[in-house]
Amino acid sequence: MRATQVIEKSLRFTPKFGKNGLIPAIAQDAKSGKILMMAYMNREALDLTIKTGFAVYFSRKRRKLWKKGEESGHIQEVQQILVDCDQDCLLLKVSVDAGQCHAGYQSCFYRALKKGSGKTLIFIAKMAYKAEKVYKKV
Amino acid sequence: MRATQVIEKSLRFTPKFGKNGLIPAIAQDAKSGKILMMAYMNREALDLTIKTGFAVYFSRKRRKLWKKGEESGHIQEVQQILVDCDQDCLLLKVSVDAGQCHAGYQSCFYRALKKGSGKTLIFIAKMAYKAEKVYKKV
Repeated sequence: MRATQVIEKSLRFTPKFGKNGLIPAIAQDAKSGKILMMAYMNREALDLTIKTGFAVYFSRKRRKLWKKGEESGHIQEVQQILVDCDQDCLLLKVSVDAGQCHAGYQSCFYRALKKGSGKTLIFIAKMAYKAEKVYKKV
Repeated sequence: MRATQVIEKSLRFTPKFGKNGLIPAIAQDAKSGKILMMAYMNREALDLTIKTGFAVYFSRKRRKLWKKGEESGHIQEVQQILVDCDQDCLLLKVSVDAGQCHAGYQSCFYRALKKGSGKTLIFIAKMAYKAEKVYKKV
C-alpha cells in the first residue's frame, strides 16, 4: 500500500499537525448534531483533551493553550474524537450547555450568506446568553 | 466597536483567507447533519461555489481548483453557506448522494479514537461504495 493508503486504512492514530504545529478541530454537539465551532489544537492541547475528557484548544491569537470555557464556563465534555481519512482534521463530538460561542450564540455559525448574494449575511440564530455579562473584557 | 466586533456583528460577508490564501470549509449533510469533510477554498473556489451552487474547493495537494465530485460524480449541491464569528471558517450545508469520501465511506470521518486510548482507532462506519471502481488511480 502507498503511504497515503496506510494512513487512510490504518487503526493507528497519527494526527498530522501542519507546519505551524496545529491541526483543525471541529466541535459538534453530540446530541443535536449542530456544528458549534472550529478551532485548532497543538499536540499538547490534543493530549490534554484526550487525558482530561474536556476540549482544550490552542489559541492562535493568544498563543497559548485554551481550555474551552475556562473563563465563560461553557465547557465541552468530549464524547468521541473522530479523525478524517488523511488524518489532518479532527471532529469532536461534545456535550455542551447553551451558549458555546463567545459572541452570545449557541454556535459560532450564527450567520449565513443571503440567497442570491455573495456579499450579504443574515442572522440565522437567536442570542443564547448575554456575552457582556460573561466576558468582562467584551 | 472594535474591529473584531464589527466582523462578528456585521452583515457584510468578509471571509478571512489565511496567509496561504485559503479558508477552511466544513461540509455538512443538510439532511442528516452528518459532517462529511473539511477542505479549503481560495477566493476563486468560493466565488465559483457561490456562483454555480456546487461546492468547489482548492486542492492543496494538486494546487488547483477542485470541483467536488468532478471525477467520482459525488458532487455537493450547496443549500446554505454559513460563516463563523470571526469569519475565518465556512460551513456548507450540502445535499449529497451516498459515498462522499474518496476512501469509500459516506463521510471522511469514518474512524474514532478508541475509548481510553490515545493511539488506537476504531472504524465507526460501513463502506458506502467501492472506491477502486470509481477512481482509476487508486
